[in-house]
Amino acid sequence: MTQVRETVSFKAGDVILYPGVPGPRDRAYRVLEGLVRLEAVDEEGNALTLRLVRPGGFFGEEALFGQERIYFAEAATDVRLEPLPENPDPDLLKDLAQHLSQGLAEAYRRIERLATQRLKNRMAAALLELSETPLAHEEEGKVVLKATHDELAAAVGSVRETVTKVIGELAREGYIRSGYGKIQLLDLKGLKELAESRGQGR
Amino acid sequence: MTQVRETVSFKAGDVILYPGVPGPRDRAYRVLEGLVRLEAVDEEGNALTLRLVRPGGFFGEEALFGQERIYFAEAATDVRLEPLPENPDPDLLKDLAQHLSQGLAEAYRRIERLATQRLKNRMAAALLELSETPLAHEEEGKVVLKATHDELAAAVGSVRETVTKVIGELAREGYIRSGYGKIQLLDLKGLKELAESRGQGR
Repeated sequence: MTQVRETVSFKAGDVILYPGVPGPRDRAYRVLEGLVRLEAVDEEGNALTLRLVRPGGFFGEEALFGQERIYFAEAATDVRLEPLPENPDPDLLKDLAQHLSQGLAEAYRRIERLATQRLKNRMAAALLELSETPLAHEEEGKVVLKATHDELAAAVGSVRETVTKVIGELAREGYIRSGYGKIQLLDLKGLKELAESRGQGR
Repeated sequence: MTQVRETVSFKAGDVILYPGVPGPRDRAYRVLEGLVRLEAVDEEGNALTLRLVRPGGFFGEEALFGQERIYFAEAATDVRLEPLPENPDPDLLKDLAQHLSQGLAEAYRRIERLATQRLKNRMAAALLELSETPLAHEEEGKVVLKATHDELAAAVGSVRETVTKVIGELAREGYIRSGYGKIQLLDLKGLKELAESRGQGR
C-alpha cells in the first residue's frame, strides 16, 4: 500500500505563516527540504530570529493546540514542507514532542547567549549555527554562508550598523572573509572558541 | 478501578534535576503543586532563569528522548511532582507537546525581551510573570512577590548590583515597594505599560 504524501513548496523569502490566532485552514508543518526561519519583527521592520527549523524539524504546531502564534515563519531557502494531519498519530506526536524539546534547548542557549555574551561572541555562535543549515555550502574546502548583514543582525538580536562593525572586526582578525551577501568561514576552531566564551565585559 | 498516582515532593531550594545526559533513573515530571525554576548557572555561580514551570506544566522531558539536559531544575517553592511513565500514552504525549509548544512561545518572548528591551522594562515583565506563579500572594489587596535581588537578577539576565539599582528606580517612581526578600506591586497598569514598551536606547 502506498501512502501519498501531501507536500507544499515555498520560494526563498516567502512568508509561510503569520502571527495570530490560527484559523481553521492553518496547519503545522514538517520541513522536508530547505530552511525555515521563525522570527519576530518590530514596528520598524527589524527582524529577530527566534528559531531555525531544519529538515526533519516542525513548526506551526500552535495550529494543533489552538494557541496564538507569535512569530512569522519565512522560507530562508526554497523549501518543501509536509503539512501535518489535524490529529497526528502517537508516533508523529512523539516525534513532535521530541523536536519541541530540542527546540526549547536551543532557545535556552539563545537566552543564555543574549544574557551573558558580547555581540562578537554571539556572532561567532550564529555563524556556526548557520554553517549547519542549508544556507551553507562548501567552496574550495571552506564553509560559505549565504547571509546579509540584516539577516546576521536578526540572528544575534542586533542592528545592521553594529553587525557590520563586528563582521569587519572578525574579518580583520582572520576568522572570516566577508563578501556581498556571503561570509566565508576561515577559522572554524577560532570561531568555536569565541562562541564558547563570554567575551570581555557584560 | 482506582489508579494510584505516584508523587514526589521537594522543599523550596532543592535541586530536582542536574544538567547532563539523563541516566536510567532519570524521569520527566509534571508539576502538581508549587513552582519549578529551570536555570543555567555559570562558573561564578550567577543563575539565569530559562523557564518557570507552574502547576500543570512539565519539565525533564529530555529523559523521554535521551537528550542532554542543559539546565538545573530547582524547587522555587515547596513542590509536589508526578513522575511521567517511560512510555507516555498518546493523551499524555499530546499534553506534553502542547506544554512544550507553550514553553517555546514563552522562550521566544524572553529572547525578544533580551534582544530589544532595556533592563527596567524587562524587570517589569519579570515581576508580572512572577505575579502569576505560586511565589505571589495577596496582602491588603496588593500582589506581593517572594523574591530576592539575586532571584530577580536571574529572572532578567543581569547581576544583583544592577538589579538593586533598577528596583530602587521602580520603587521611587511608585510602581513597587521593595522590602527584605519581597516586592509589593503597587501599580499593575503602569508595570504592564513598561513591560510592553522597549524603553529608551537599545
